[in-house]
Amino acid sequence: MVKNISIKGIEFSGIASGIKSEGPDLGLVVFRDDMNVLTAYTRNRVKAAHILYDRKVDKGTVRALVANSGCANACTGKEGVGDLSAISKVLAPLIGTPPEKVLFACTGVIGKRLPVDTIISALPRAAGSTKESGIDEFARAIMTTDTYPKIVQATCKGKKTYKVVGVAKGSGMINPFFATMLAFVFTDFPVSPETVRRAFTQSIRDSFERITVDGECSTNDTIMLFTRQGDEDSHALESFKETLGTVLKELSMLVVRDGEGATKVAHIIVKGSKRKEWAEKIARRIALSPLTKTAFFGSDPNWGRIIAAAGDAGVPLNPSKVDISLQGEVIAKGGTEVPFDEKVLKKLMDRKEISVIVDLNEGKASFDIFTTDLTYDYVKINASYRS
Amino acid sequence: MVKNISIKGIEFSGIASGIKSEGPDLGLVVFRDDMNVLTAYTRNRVKAAHILYDRKVDKGTVRALVANSGCANACTGKEGVGDLSAISKVLAPLIGTPPEKVLFACTGVIGKRLPVDTIISALPRAAGSTKESGIDEFARAIMTTDTYPKIVQATCKGKKTYKVVGVAKGSGMINPFFATMLAFVFTDFPVSPETVRRAFTQSIRDSFERITVDGECSTNDTIMLFTRQGDEDSHALESFKETLGTVLKELSMLVVRDGEGATKVAHIIVKGSKRKEWAEKIARRIALSPLTKTAFFGSDPNWGRIIAAAGDAGVPLNPSKVDISLQGEVIAKGGTEVPFDEKVLKKLMDRKEISVIVDLNEGKASFDIFTTDLTYDYVKINASYRS
Repeated sequence: MVKNISIKGIEFSGIASGIKSEGPDLGLVVFRDDMNVLTAYTRNRVKAAHILYDRKVDKGTVRALVANSGCANACTGKEGVGDLSAISKVLAPLIGTPPEKVLFACTGVIGKRLPVDTIISALPRAAGSTKESGIDEFARAIMTTDTYPKIVQATCKGKKTYKVVGVAKGSGMINPFFATMLAFVFTDFPVSPETVRRAFTQSIRDSFERITVDGECSTNDTIMLFTRQGDEDSHALESFKETLGTVLKELSMLVVRDGEGATKVAHIIVKGSKRKEWAEKIARRIALSPLTKTAFFGSDPNWGRIIAAAGDAGVPLNPSKVDISLQGEVIAKGGTEVPFDEKVLKKLMDRKEISVIVDLNEGKASFDIFTTDLTYDYVKINASYRS
Repeated sequence: MVKNISIKGIEFSGIASGIKSEGPDLGLVVFRDDMNVLTAYTRNRVKAAHILYDRKVDKGTVRALVANSGCANACTGKEGVGDLSAISKVLAPLIGTPPEKVLFACTGVIGKRLPVDTIISALPRAAGSTKESGIDEFARAIMTTDTYPKIVQATCKGKKTYKVVGVAKGSGMINPFFATMLAFVFTDFPVSPETVRRAFTQSIRDSFERITVDGECSTNDTIMLFTRQGDEDSHALESFKETLGTVLKELSMLVVRDGEGATKVAHIIVKGSKRKEWAEKIARRIALSPLTKTAFFGSDPNWGRIIAAAGDAGVPLNPSKVDISLQGEVIAKGGTEVPFDEKVLKKLMDRKEISVIVDLNEGKASFDIFTTDLTYDYVKINASYRS
């Protein structure tokens, strides 16, 4: 984790407000100046109240972000949206901004209302403790089953040097299409949303849409990019876009490595496909297969499960052309097994990072995705989450 | 389990041939007279050798079925098909039939060749031990991670009474689209394949395609219906079709109840849909969700995970219209929570059978499917299967 992360004019706090029975659960970001914001939300048809609320207010500029853990505020109807409105009205005067410049992001249990009175009572404490060096407290306040806070810092250069700081939370309900619950990127690089919208979308495709833990798509998934207003520094634009991509990629890797119960991360590469979309479907199918994921956990070089998952992806596949490598060792060629030393390969599979290459030998398109193993702890965490 | 199951003229055996390090692994069925056969195979693009082999020979009538566990004979190339040919040539004279009247079905580890010499040495013992009362031995010889043999018997009536006997194996790699590895139905009802083909397909749709354990689609899935030849008894035809449906449904329920590591079976009913296909997609998505499945394991009335899965099914859904019942208790109405007693509901969820009803309140179409919970033992079984 990077130390001493801060951006001038952006203050963070994270406190225990009482949403959870213990631990920090309320994060606040206050921007001294108006910021532009770009957002990307879950594709789930069931959307949390904060998404419905933010969509109404995030057309303009923003001055604050409230992010809480312990309650997803999803499936809470109009009341859930009203709760956010009530909180923003109390918070706004405390930080000297109109209520409509406050955004929200929530994570936690679905179907429960926010304890609005509890949160409102805690707002003076949250607003009173913000500081430029407070991002670690903020990152901890948005954790649910995460085992560590997730912060990334990078810089980009133009006429001067700018900071790009990302913070995320996510561990379960990590899905292949839009794969975190909450991620925020802050920068002092002055740029309009229009200028970086495409880079933002592309960076998400290459990062959070390339990881999966359990194939679940949250009701709350939210990614936000906050950029400064002011004259654009065109010399730094390409550098900024690249840095944005790096920051989102690193955040997404922090998320998948902290996948619920995960002991390993597997990188699934499908190449030699006639079409990229076919490679993608096969890679995602392998990455979601409970049988390949339990085999990773057991350090089992079970390529049969990998090819079986590939064959079940709903796209053309010629099994007799497929080569499979595990940890760099060719283990199947032309769809049949290459003799290998079980002990040696099992030992290679014991590593924390697993590499799977499936070569279809039919074309030039490829796709890759990161996934976790499926372990006892995933079951343990999720069989007892609410209680 | 029904006792004393037999059909005149159909003999079964099950022996330990040495494919596995211990336990029965080679099942044989010998038909005294030529039988008609209807088959349905996996939709996986990667198909086991027995499917490739049977497709060549099952156009005509059959006299024997060899089914083994311990080796899937999948991803074994032309050699895998040749192995079956070699076995059939040795078996045929032992049971007095041409080799092309012998069908095969294999289950077990993918990617390994059959130990042909071992099997051939065991064939005289397999052929010598067949008997009409041997179905239990046969059912045990095709088990892999199954914890009990799966046999169902029923009768249908026309001018006389006919028997319909089903046997299946399946526990893991149970997928939502075609959901067992091996199931065989035998009957002394004389009927041509053409007459019952539609009923066979529909019965599979209503049984094995309505269960899921882990969303995995095997390379080996096979369902076969063996019927007697001779004059059709048209009085019994409707009764037979109904009985066939019952037998396949009961077999599929035996399979899902024996799902790897499963402690519970959940019946997911989605109703009030504008289209049946939408109801189906939502039901299947809920049935495959690791988060709903771990919640079932934990007796957690976590309806939020159910509606989140429903919203992620890729079909239209109006969350504010959705009602959800668990164990007959309404727990969400109009997409928001109905106050309920956690303790009471948790106790209801402790039962072995869980009922989930999701009412979309938008139309009249519905779909239902059976799934299992996701448990420590699923991980345990599959993290150590090959070793």
